Amino acid sequence: MEPVTVAFQGEAGAYSEAAGLEFFHSTARTVACHTFEDVFAAVSSGQVNHGILPIENSLAGSIHRNYDLLLRNELFIVGEYHHRVNHCLLGLPGVRLEDLVQVHSHPQALAQCEASLAQLKLPGIAEADTAGSAKWLSESGNRKAGAIASRRAAQVYGLNILVENLEDNPANYTRFLIVAARPLEVALSNAENFKTSIVFSMPNRPGILFKAMSVFALRDIDLTKIESRPIAGKPWEYMFYIDFAGSDQSPACARALAHLEELTIFLRILGSYPRHQINY
Amino acid sequence: MEPVTVAFQGEAGAYSEAAGLEFFHSTARTVACHTFEDVFAAVSSGQVNHGILPIENSLAGSIHRNYDLLLRNELFIVGEYHHRVNHCLLGLPGVRLEDLVQVHSHPQALAQCEASLAQLKLPGIAEADTAGSAKWLSESGNRKAGAIASRRAAQVYGLNILVENLEDNPANYTRFLIVAARPLEVALSNAENFKTSIVFSMPNRPGILFKAMSVFALRDIDLTKIESRPIAGKPWEYMFYIDFAGSDQSPACARALAHLEELTIFLRILGSYPRHQINY
Repeated sequence: MEPVTVAFQGEAGAYSEAAGLEFFHSTARTVACHTFEDVFAAVSSGQVNHGILPIENSLAGSIHRNYDLLLRNELFIVGEYHHRVNHCLLGLPGVRLEDLVQVHSHPQALAQCEASLAQLKLPGIAEADTAGSAKWLSESGNRKAGAIASRRAAQVYGLNILVENLEDNPANYTRFLIVAARPLEVALSNAENFKTSIVFSMPNRPGILFKAMSVFALRDIDLTKIESRPIAGKPWEYMFYIDFAGSDQSPACARALAHLEELTIFLRILGSYPRHQINY
Repeated sequence: MEPVTVAFQGEAGAYSEAAGLEFFHSTARTVACHTFEDVFAAVSSGQVNHGILPIENSLAGSIHRNYDLLLRNELFIVGEYHHRVNHCLLGLPGVRLEDLVQVHSHPQALAQCEASLAQLKLPGIAEADTAGSAKWLSESGNRKAGAIASRRAAQVYGLNILVENLEDNPANYTRFLIVAARPLEVALSNAENFKTSIVFSMPNRPGILFKAMSVFALRDIDLTKIESRPIAGKPWEYMFYIDFAGSDQSPACARALAHLEELTIFLRILGSYPRHQINY
């Protein structure tokens, strides 16, 4: 069996890397990429056998760029993973919480810790990413600065965790997609614990989205997500992305997809993969 | 009658200001605000009687932040306007196109002019906004730099237009919403040329979004937009934003909304307003 290699966007210690190691176990080899496009390219070229991509955060919403890139690239979704975002306040070894005068991190991480930082009377300084802030802190040797990043970033850069779960809202999850060059082979026996992601476009007619949704509703197939993205060159027309419960190999889902094809101009199955279910 | 005052986000000369002046005619008094939140605050406090907010671009997609702010604030949508984005390459008076060695603008404007800039062999430098780049150019006196901004920014900052329609894709429109403290009073006679925007949440049950859409489809009411945003604290549950054709005062739409109320936990009408229809 090939060893697992997984590309992620960001610096070593990014939340995406942490999620990849949780999904594949800590023996997987991770490859840091500068952009999301680079993650797709690393998988397409065979440099790695998997990529991990954030697709939605339970507080901030969808990462629309990755929806567009799923369409533009010919990869398949082979898994999903819900990662609990645990923002840690990191400092250099020996530095105490009361030594800090400012905290560096990505603007979204700072925003998600706004109340906690206000309570600690620590102003936030915006940086390009969370793990990059931890890396900078480690290299700068600045004993008055902290960084907000993952628990893994603390390990990678030899920093101490001064506060765990700094986020104001604990219901902070990111859903990641695992992509590969080939689709998963689905054993029908456990197809009911699967999810399928599709993308499609339709002629611009009144009621057409309702009809598209009816192919699922009339077969009691549960939709778990709907997202729309603009089509370049056709103002106010959309590509629709839908996730539904079930495998494309199950008879009901296969019939729903055949029915959907009667209505669409374009339809692509992005992948069928095991659902990740956790209790919130 | 009160004189028209309209708050917009950005520097003088921003595309939002240009759209506001096209919508209200050039005699309106415009008020520049630092953030979208400031635009909502200026209208809520009565400092201005209208605000103008970008809600969707035909290439880049929805401006999700403004969906969240529509929910958080108690304003009403009283109009919409589709503004054709005409990116102009601006230079100081007397500067020729061949004098330029670099071009400053917002990353999205640079991305939308990527092919044109490559043809001109001009690298792009990312700045915080388009009009801000024009302002900077005017103040810096830099005769080797250009800025990508609106035609209006050229007037405001005394710059010359070196190239018009620099954008690679001409189907580049931004839809703006006009907000006010009170809803529009709709005359029923022309209600068929109206559009209504609503926001709602529903219990997390299979098929519930399909049922919500059926209240419109069963009455032949055309949906023009659907958008979803996360609900903080409830991972993977959503607020749905729907635009549909018609006024909330028309009998069919009023019945559809009463029917929708049977299914929703929360429902708010954001406004009924005249459709802006243009030929693309």
